Amino acid sequence: MAVPNLQIALDHNTLEDAISDIFKVGEIVDIVEVGTILCLQEGQKAIKAIRAMFPSKIIIADTKCADAGTTVAKNVVECGADWMTVICSATLPTMEAARKEVKELQVELYGDWTMEQAKSWKEIGINQVIYHQSRDALLSGGSWGEKDLKMVQQLIDLGFQVSVTGGLSVETLSLFKGMDVHTFITGRGITAAEDPVKAATEFKETIRAIWG
Amino acid sequence: MAVPNLQIALDHNTLEDAISDIFKVGEIVDIVEVGTILCLQEGQKAIKAIRAMFPSKIIIADTKCADAGTTVAKNVVECGADWMTVICSATLPTMEAARKEVKELQVELYGDWTMEQAKSWKEIGINQVIYHQSRDALLSGGSWGEKDLKMVQQLIDLGFQVSVTGGLSVETLSLFKGMDVHTFITGRGITAAEDPVKAATEFKETIRAIWG
Repeated sequence: MAVPNLQIALDHNTLEDAISDIFKVGEIVDIVEVGTILCLQEGQKAIKAIRAMFPSKIIIADTKCADAGTTVAKNVVECGADWMTVICSATLPTMEAARKEVKELQVELYGDWTMEQAKSWKEIGINQVIYHQSRDALLSGGSWGEKDLKMVQQLIDLGFQVSVTGGLSVETLSLFKGMDVHTFITGRGITAAEDPVKAATEFKETIRAIWG
Repeated sequence: MAVPNLQIALDHNTLEDAISDIFKVGEIVDIVEVGTILCLQEGQKAIKAIRAMFPSKIIIADTKCADAGTTVAKNVVECGADWMTVICSATLPTMEAARKEVKELQVELYGDWTMEQAKSWKEIGINQVIYHQSRDALLSGGSWGEKDLKMVQQLIDLGFQVSVTGGLSVETLSLFKGMDVHTFITGRGITAAEDPVKAATEFKETIRAIWG
């Protein structure tokens, strides 16, 4: 079982704030995600700036693309993104179109998707999914439970590289012990910490302690 | 039955191209949509620029928001958007959060949504949905058919103001004759026309001829 990656989600409202955080912790994390909020606020230059700072790090454009897969994918690749996300309710033609343009396409799992749909994504050559606790669901009192862990395991069993995200902390990582999680994604778990460098380091060390 | 609105979708890759088109036809159309591609490419300034050009026109930010409803909605309202879109696979808490911030929230219907879900959106006070033929589905040979028209009518019967979009032309408008469609959305139907002003005028006149 490989050691899971640590991915930081930059969901800032301004590029300045995003840069300020990623400047501190960029070398600690494995993958940098230019979050949807940041993409919508700053456009192309958000991805371009992060790529300029980290020429060889994996950068994800979290576009949650729902349509026009070719155009959206070509645009983010042109800015320097390696991977991008599509929403689970995008049609298969949209996913196929996007997949051809990027190194890896990740399906974002929100709402009422099914394992049948997941199988159809695998059939068109998609290797990665992102299992979510939505921020708004968390704010409404939701949390990681048995049901979530079971679904993550089912996705792994289908052959997906599974990223998990939503309200993760150093403490909740151990819930996934023994599971072949590909990547843990956190935003505020690092950026809202009193000491982001310490927080990122603790995430990395805890992952290594459990899976190393 | 009210006369349906005509909405232009600005799905350009650059603000310059979008402005060039909307400058010509902005006064003819009823609603201006800052498309997802344009939002992702140019960020905030796309909405701000369109608002600056048309101080009193309805402007929609087509964010297809899937999470962080409050933040995304607040951000687009700050730029001058009146309405915004969420994706159908967003959770109800995300939709509720976004709905509180904007004048109207529109649910974008992609993939395998159900009428049961539509009822739950109505119950939390959402009045508008957008029925889609996705661009990629159209490229794969899909088109408007009996099934689409029936679903649009079902949504109208549920009490939604329904916008329809995807490969619409002056000729296909008559397919919806007798239906209480709220808005027809077209992008390339106007922007890719040899004469965009003539195309927009023809759309408006045809709508008026059928529903007036």
